[in-house]
Amino acid sequence: MDNSLLVVGSVAFDHVQTPAGERDESLGGSATYFSYSASFFVPVKLVAVIGEDFPQKHIDMLKKRNIDTTGLVRQPGKTFRWAGSYMQNLNEAETLSTELNVFENFKPELPESYKDTPYVFLANINPELQLDVLNLTRSPKFVACDTMNLWINYKKPQLIKLLGKIDLIVLNDAEAKMLTESDNIIKAARAIQSYGPKSVVVKKGEHGALLVHGDDIFTVPAYPLETVVDPTGAGDTFAGGMLGYICKSGKTDTMTLKKAMAYGTVMASFNVQDFSMNNLFGLTEHAIEERLQDLIRKSSLHEFVNR
Amino acid sequence: MDNSLLVVGSVAFDHVQTPAGERDESLGGSATYFSYSASFFVPVKLVAVIGEDFPQKHIDMLKKRNIDTTGLVRQPGKTFRWAGSYMQNLNEAETLSTELNVFENFKPELPESYKDTPYVFLANINPELQLDVLNLTRSPKFVACDTMNLWINYKKPQLIKLLGKIDLIVLNDAEAKMLTESDNIIKAARAIQSYGPKSVVVKKGEHGALLVHGDDIFTVPAYPLETVVDPTGAGDTFAGGMLGYICKSGKTDTMTLKKAMAYGTVMASFNVQDFSMNNLFGLTEHAIEERLQDLIRKSSLHEFVNR
Repeated sequence: MDNSLLVVGSVAFDHVQTPAGERDESLGGSATYFSYSASFFVPVKLVAVIGEDFPQKHIDMLKKRNIDTTGLVRQPGKTFRWAGSYMQNLNEAETLSTELNVFENFKPELPESYKDTPYVFLANINPELQLDVLNLTRSPKFVACDTMNLWINYKKPQLIKLLGKIDLIVLNDAEAKMLTESDNIIKAARAIQSYGPKSVVVKKGEHGALLVHGDDIFTVPAYPLETVVDPTGAGDTFAGGMLGYICKSGKTDTMTLKKAMAYGTVMASFNVQDFSMNNLFGLTEHAIEERLQDLIRKSSLHEFVNR
Repeated sequence: MDNSLLVVGSVAFDHVQTPAGERDESLGGSATYFSYSASFFVPVKLVAVIGEDFPQKHIDMLKKRNIDTTGLVRQPGKTFRWAGSYMQNLNEAETLSTELNVFENFKPELPESYKDTPYVFLANINPELQLDVLNLTRSPKFVACDTMNLWINYKKPQLIKLLGKIDLIVLNDAEAKMLTESDNIIKAARAIQSYGPKSVVVKKGEHGALLVHGDDIFTVPAYPLETVVDPTGAGDTFAGGMLGYICKSGKTDTMTLKKAMAYGTVMASFNVQDFSMNNLFGLTEHAIEERLQDLIRKSSLHEFVNR
């Protein structure tokens, strides 16, 4: 069984300010965080664009994690750069600047070896590019996407079109409310389902995440942490853990999605404990399993089920 | 075994604005919500003051729920009144006005039949009054309290003194951060423990609640609701369900506190589904148990425990 996972999204350098400090030229980007997180579960095929300034050592690091970089293309110019601040709010970044650079004219292509990948994640980029990539795949088994306020504001028709073609969307609470003009996240998730996806995951930062899957509703808290160093990439790491587990299990029933949300929560919790992806680098599958069990211990009411 | 529960707090008339509408002269007050909620679990002894305008029908209604109103004293003047708006934020009321009225010179006294009550809840009132009531009791088994931003700002020394004498405090996330000057609720809860209470419950409105009990940490989500009509009294109803269950079980171990939080969550969820206490009036123990099981179904990861 081919259980590999295709992701298209951004690879970037970030400049990040948080109450814990400041970092410049950190490795970032939605596809980078997603790939690295998912690589703990399944082989990942990465589609993205980098500039001439992107060091080979980062590519080698991704390859070591069994991430296929055939679709990572280098183009003339500079790598995408993002600067953000979490000084006011650890749950949501204030974007200070965005330099599209090589992303400005990016036209994604899929290597032939990528086209039959059964699981596809369209990470946060322009929904037109997300649609382009989806159209280049051959009947994937399960397609998921993320998005952001920028696209809800400026590319809503394209985003709605995309939603008609996917199985699962992962987005944050402010985005879900904005997209549906609803003030309640469950109502918002139901409205998003009406656009196409059977499953909607609403991420609430430190407050956890909500899954609406068909008629089912399920909530997972964030893993309780006393110190959050850098929330950058938390949502992408969450999605990487979630999709990684779905892809690994080969199933998309409620039970699988619940456990996938828990793995997403665990991966995001590791990610926010240090700047950039630093805390993911030394991570082991054993540590992931340990934290999953700890999350269950700290949140499950299972002792009180009426049998 | 005497498993009754003493509560001192406010009995009030509320004027409330929410996106769902507006209500005037609604029955409210921290002790009213608490008592009614706790009465589904144990007999309650109420200490509060009302004015000449408080109708007998409300007192009769409380008595029917096995709430002892011997300590509910009527004094010359008007009943306490509070006006608040949730138009901007369903999670936190904007106080529009507070008329202390009979509360202004309230000096609580305890009927002799109340003094040996084993479980005591000091609902949100001036911490000096909370201390007065506590000093009138004879060696209670378990004491809990609530508070609010007003007292943290203006009566912090008295509040800190109170914290040295209690077992459990229930307060909201903004209050926990304000009291401890911390930006993380787990750190805040740890700091509050250092003032005395072994157990701290931080309420996060629609995001659920966090328990820190000794070294243990436990989270419970809010019961997912598509429609919230009026959040007034949610925190007091939560505390009523929580303390009611603790008192009924006669235990204060981690497992009991976890289940108590779940009952608090369930009681609060019923309360916010209609204005004032309207949705509590027709409530049955069967409906409470059903919703508890549904909360567990919608939030527990118990299938994934490693055995």
